[in-house]
Amino acid sequence: MMDGGTIWDARNTSLTIDQWAVKIEEALEQAGRSEAIFNVDPNDNREFDTIFIGGGAAGRFGSAYLRAMGGRQLVIDRWPFLGGSCPHNACVPHHVFSECAAELMLARTFSGRFWFPKMDGVTVNMKEIVDLFRRGRTGPHAVMNYQSKEQLDIEFVLNAPARIIDAHTVEVAGRRFKARTLVLGLGARPQRLAVPGVDLKGVYDYTSFVETLDYEPGNTAVVVGGSKTAVEYGCFFNATGRRTVMLVRSQLLKLIPDADTRTYVIDRMRDQGIEIIEGAEVVRIEGDSRGRVAKLVAKTPNGPLEIKTDFVFLGLGETPNSEAAVEALGVKTDPKTGAVLVDDSLRTSVPNVYAVGDLIGAPMEMFKARKSGTYAARAIMGQAISYRPTDWPDFLHTHYEVTWLGLGEDEARKRYRNVVVIRMPPHNPNGLDIGLPASDRVMLYAMAKPRMSGFQKLVIDGDSRRIVGAHHVGYGARDAFQYLYVLVKQGLTIDQLGDMDELFLNPTHFIQLSRLRAGQKELRDL
Amino acid sequence: MMDGGTIWDARNTSLTIDQWAVKIEEALEQAGRSEAIFNVDPNDNREFDTIFIGGGAAGRFGSAYLRAMGGRQLVIDRWPFLGGSCPHNACVPHHVFSECAAELMLARTFSGRFWFPKMDGVTVNMKEIVDLFRRGRTGPHAVMNYQSKEQLDIEFVLNAPARIIDAHTVEVAGRRFKARTLVLGLGARPQRLAVPGVDLKGVYDYTSFVETLDYEPGNTAVVVGGSKTAVEYGCFFNATGRRTVMLVRSQLLKLIPDADTRTYVIDRMRDQGIEIIEGAEVVRIEGDSRGRVAKLVAKTPNGPLEIKTDFVFLGLGETPNSEAAVEALGVKTDPKTGAVLVDDSLRTSVPNVYAVGDLIGAPMEMFKARKSGTYAARAIMGQAISYRPTDWPDFLHTHYEVTWLGLGEDEARKRYRNVVVIRMPPHNPNGLDIGLPASDRVMLYAMAKPRMSGFQKLVIDGDSRRIVGAHHVGYGARDAFQYLYVLVKQGLTIDQLGDMDELFLNPTHFIQLSRLRAGQKELRDL
Repeated sequence: MMDGGTIWDARNTSLTIDQWAVKIEEALEQAGRSEAIFNVDPNDNREFDTIFIGGGAAGRFGSAYLRAMGGRQLVIDRWPFLGGSCPHNACVPHHVFSECAAELMLARTFSGRFWFPKMDGVTVNMKEIVDLFRRGRTGPHAVMNYQSKEQLDIEFVLNAPARIIDAHTVEVAGRRFKARTLVLGLGARPQRLAVPGVDLKGVYDYTSFVETLDYEPGNTAVVVGGSKTAVEYGCFFNATGRRTVMLVRSQLLKLIPDADTRTYVIDRMRDQGIEIIEGAEVVRIEGDSRGRVAKLVAKTPNGPLEIKTDFVFLGLGETPNSEAAVEALGVKTDPKTGAVLVDDSLRTSVPNVYAVGDLIGAPMEMFKARKSGTYAARAIMGQAISYRPTDWPDFLHTHYEVTWLGLGEDEARKRYRNVVVIRMPPHNPNGLDIGLPASDRVMLYAMAKPRMSGFQKLVIDGDSRRIVGAHHVGYGARDAFQYLYVLVKQGLTIDQLGDMDELFLNPTHFIQLSRLRAGQKELRDL
Repeated sequence: MMDGGTIWDARNTSLTIDQWAVKIEEALEQAGRSEAIFNVDPNDNREFDTIFIGGGAAGRFGSAYLRAMGGRQLVIDRWPFLGGSCPHNACVPHHVFSECAAELMLARTFSGRFWFPKMDGVTVNMKEIVDLFRRGRTGPHAVMNYQSKEQLDIEFVLNAPARIIDAHTVEVAGRRFKARTLVLGLGARPQRLAVPGVDLKGVYDYTSFVETLDYEPGNTAVVVGGSKTAVEYGCFFNATGRRTVMLVRSQLLKLIPDADTRTYVIDRMRDQGIEIIEGAEVVRIEGDSRGRVAKLVAKTPNGPLEIKTDFVFLGLGETPNSEAAVEALGVKTDPKTGAVLVDDSLRTSVPNVYAVGDLIGAPMEMFKARKSGTYAARAIMGQAISYRPTDWPDFLHTHYEVTWLGLGEDEARKRYRNVVVIRMPPHNPNGLDIGLPASDRVMLYAMAKPRMSGFQKLVIDGDSRRIVGAHHVGYGARDAFQYLYVLVKQGLTIDQLGDMDELFLNPTHFIQLSRLRAGQKELRDL
């Protein structure tokens, strides 16, 4: 360890979670001017097996795993907490906003009835909700610091940027640390749009929305993008009572694999009043005299479009933060995406240097971040591993939770000659205006506004009787898809599914619907 | 078929779901005075393989399964719809009320903030919610009639009581039907309390609450019972803003197997203001001059208790409706519970007579009703089957959803020498006042009222590394437990669990928490 830079040594102190929260808040308020937080064991004379550069999901989980295996690691992060952007300004705030969207849709649907307030014409203050999150987010941060230090035995340096010296050496807070290997976990950042006016005040992405919103946006929100982030935030803005226009370059929610499911989802977004313009391209954003957004100009299939607004949200995907590693180490990256290239063992092009998490590109999902961290740890500790996710269950939020695994119906029909589909609502002359499905958070809809109560579909290969796809719009099914996915990968049949024990009134009606058909030798749709 | 009685022949009509709803509502309004609804195929000359007496979950699913296998069945129900009491006045309304309880707890917690109305001192009208359900319940009924007829090809006679003539003969609406076998699916009814005053107006059980509530109860609700039904309704009454007193004969929620989980659940009920008196016995209920409940008198460990109230709810479990079958056929019943005794093939003591659903006793759960119906169908169609549920995932509602499978920690410690526990929140000096867990419907709590954001625990046999118990309080995990249970029965290890793909921010944090420990050879608590 070299000398230099001021540090606060956490080693001999056991902060409670509350105390960590105070520490983190102080550090965040001082924005990089406070001391580095050191939790490095001076009595451990072993070489570090690795240094994780970046303490987000990948670095923290990789650290925990390597430590659990008996190795020695160090994890370094510029923020005063472990866990990275997810709980700070990325996925966790989105869950807060999506919860608000779901609650607000319910409140607006039942406006003035029962205990629900009158919501007609009510615009909900967004900044108050952002502020709630900004105050509350330190809580999870503090849990992760506490857990990492007291329960997982992770060594870390926080609240200080790391500088990569070479493939074995990192400098932080004026000290140099050496390790057998490095693991790069530098994350990603929101993509920007290359149009005039994109730097005006009032143009946000998911990071700056949480970090810098300091006024209450007006009555019109413009969202640029058509995939997860754009839709999740767009539905929230809409739910607050604002006119919300979504400008989608190609097609909205292409990633939802089942066409009926996608239609259900988009129709409900339109029902809530979201204006969706596909094939749209932003031309420029114009500002007022104070440098604030005043207008957005776009090209659309129906001609030019001008929208007066003081609030534009860019939901355009993410760019890996690979520049520093390229510069310091010369790691190879994908020329198109900027992602650091790795092999199935998470090794970069530079010997002894691994990369994990969003830095290595799609899927930029939590499970991949965390698992790539742990797989890198296992590789470094000498295990023969292979990790390259090609298929996984997936979800997104609108005002609803939309979850899927496997194949959509159309794709299944391309692959199997005898596809059987089980749907709820079933095909019937009244369409969606029928009193099922019902379950978590849609009971009031099922009773009073049935078409809002969700949609679900199982796709089955009728010959093998195996489930090949499952799709759900509603609430309370996302967690289930994690486990259902494993069973489907095992070859789950409609017979096995129908023989399970449902916890009625279950959000996925899959078990009971399967049971209604499982007696058939030649399966038919339901 | 004999002649006599007026019938409406549904055979040659394809009613839409909407049209079924109208038909069902008309029949319910005329309360037994309308025509029997016949859907019997005059062109099928085969003998009936069986007649299901009772078209609830067991009879309907058994019918569908037998039909799917190519057999011929008839199902008869006194109500004008298939599906039975569950969607009419049992489990489905409870889900409506539990949804209200969850929403009201959220609204009260954030009273006057964001878009939430000021809830201080607000009592929510219960009758309005009951009326909403009474209007809405026909929707699911209609779906089931439509599905049963148009998609499942079930033959049925509805809106007319069945009279059992002998083990092969049933009379309904003046016609006699003969079958190879009978399946009794007569259901169960709420248990009554043998104390003076129990027949006063104002004493309800889950059935009469839905069917007959015709006034708005006052400020105090007294609930008698301490298990699922009592707690589910008690939390709803509490959430409406009423003083709610729960009188529990022994111990509240004994059925929750994990002590920490149970404590978390009960503490949160108390936080919401529910008064829980264990070891209490109702002595009598006193009425006013108009025959309405005015006061309840109980014995408690702290002496006699009198509570002024106009609303008493009995949540005391259920009694099988076995009397008619005993009288007509002499089927043997359990002298203690009144349940019809069956063997592992669902056969009663009378040859060719089977029994299914709540009629055969505990567990009176939906999965058992439906599955016992399908297993009886398979037995009747000549398959060698065995069905006797001994273990299943389970849940109940408070203001939360409480779900569990397998062993609680204490029981696991009796059975395994090396039990490892993973909890969230973890053991820590700040206890529950920390910013995790977070996920569906608890995001606002996690940000502002962390101790309300839930509790979860995994119980692991450290030697085999297998999951032996899982426990969750929060929302959005119930569906998952259906599938997780199957994996646990397969022998799921912490290593396999940690290698799954979480759909972050997942309600059960089990996958990621397992991954933090899975690297260890000797597992430790987290």
